[in-house]
Amino acid sequence: MTFEISPTNRVRQLSEKARYDEESVHAILDAGLVAQVAFVQEGKPVVVPMIYGRDGNRLYLHGARKARVIRMLEAGPSVCLNVTLLDGIVYARSLFNSSMNYRSVTVHGTATLIEGDERVHALSVISEHLMPGRSEEVRPSHEKEILMTGVIQVEIESASAKISMGPPDDEDEDMDAPVWAGVMPLRLKAGALIRDPEVPEDMLPTPHMQSQTGRSF
Amino acid sequence: MTFEISPTNRVRQLSEKARYDEESVHAILDAGLVAQVAFVQEGKPVVVPMIYGRDGNRLYLHGARKARVIRMLEAGPSVCLNVTLLDGIVYARSLFNSSMNYRSVTVHGTATLIEGDERVHALSVISEHLMPGRSEEVRPSHEKEILMTGVIQVEIESASAKISMGPPDDEDEDMDAPVWAGVMPLRLKAGALIRDPEVPEDMLPTPHMQSQTGRSF
Repeated sequence: MTFEISPTNRVRQLSEKARYDEESVHAILDAGLVAQVAFVQEGKPVVVPMIYGRDGNRLYLHGARKARVIRMLEAGPSVCLNVTLLDGIVYARSLFNSSMNYRSVTVHGTATLIEGDERVHALSVISEHLMPGRSEEVRPSHEKEILMTGVIQVEIESASAKISMGPPDDEDEDMDAPVWAGVMPLRLKAGALIRDPEVPEDMLPTPHMQSQTGRSF
Repeated sequence: MTFEISPTNRVRQLSEKARYDEESVHAILDAGLVAQVAFVQEGKPVVVPMIYGRDGNRLYLHGARKARVIRMLEAGPSVCLNVTLLDGIVYARSLFNSSMNYRSVTVHGTATLIEGDERVHALSVISEHLMPGRSEEVRPSHEKEILMTGVIQVEIESASAKISMGPPDDEDEDMDAPVWAGVMPLRLKAGALIRDPEVPEDMLPTPHMQSQTGRSF
């Protein structure tokens, strides 16, 4: 499936880097950890970084039930979300052609507060996205904790991905410049686990957690 | 100096993690690479990831002069920017208390298109932020290139930082749970430089560029 190209989601600059197919959009959303969620409050823009999860063409966000961002989003405003993963700094032969490599998705949709079983499902989706498998290692959430958590659903109404990769794209006249050019790759990487000082020294992370140590984004 | 606390920038959730002093705000802005820039277009929110640079309490953004984002921002709208650096996934003893460690800054201001010498200065600030020292290694920008670049200034009118770090903060009743808890640290790291295939194999990156290989964000 492909998202319909409209004035809302059409990528105008460097449009050859645009993708509108679900597979590309979903892959970037699944690779990211935090979405930047923008909405309008009293006519002014607000952008808030939020953890999220995806189920089909639905995104879930959460926060404290009484948090401003949840109170704003439960009113059902239009939202615009962006998830960007930085893949490198592109050192071209001129500053003008220098840039970044990245995978980025922009989503447009409408926020809705969800409750009941939907809320429980959404929290599970968010948890699996951030910490896959962890829900089987800790106690089940208390009813009170679920009630204290506000969960927002955003149905993806429109989306586009933009992917920039590869070496610099320099002017022909610059190609013989005696200067090194290329890419400094970037990657968000998980390092060695840091034990909570209150955890007994001889308690090892579960094999599942140990397997997560090599995660990168 | 400290940014005045107002309804615009007051951190309501986990307010003990908030900082309003310039030093904290500037340090995070200087450590980040990409800002998420939100504005209102025809009543709807839009958020766009953009490279930036900082000079005092002024942020500079740039894009193609004819790009939609520049055309929108040159109209002088209110903007909200967020820069977030992810420092870790916090594995608590419950899903409810699990979270992330991060450094985040939110800035509110008004966009202004700048031209002339200011534009040249701003482009230099952005370039130094992304690729310090690189401007001395490549040719000077052509006048045409500068004219093709739209530069937006955002004076920081209001700002707040939010910093979350350290081990999980669990409920007392969960402290004896037989489950490992702690932090999976995250870091955006620069890897080994990738040479543009058009660069001769025997041309080495400048010592300056080689020194950048260990950068992390």
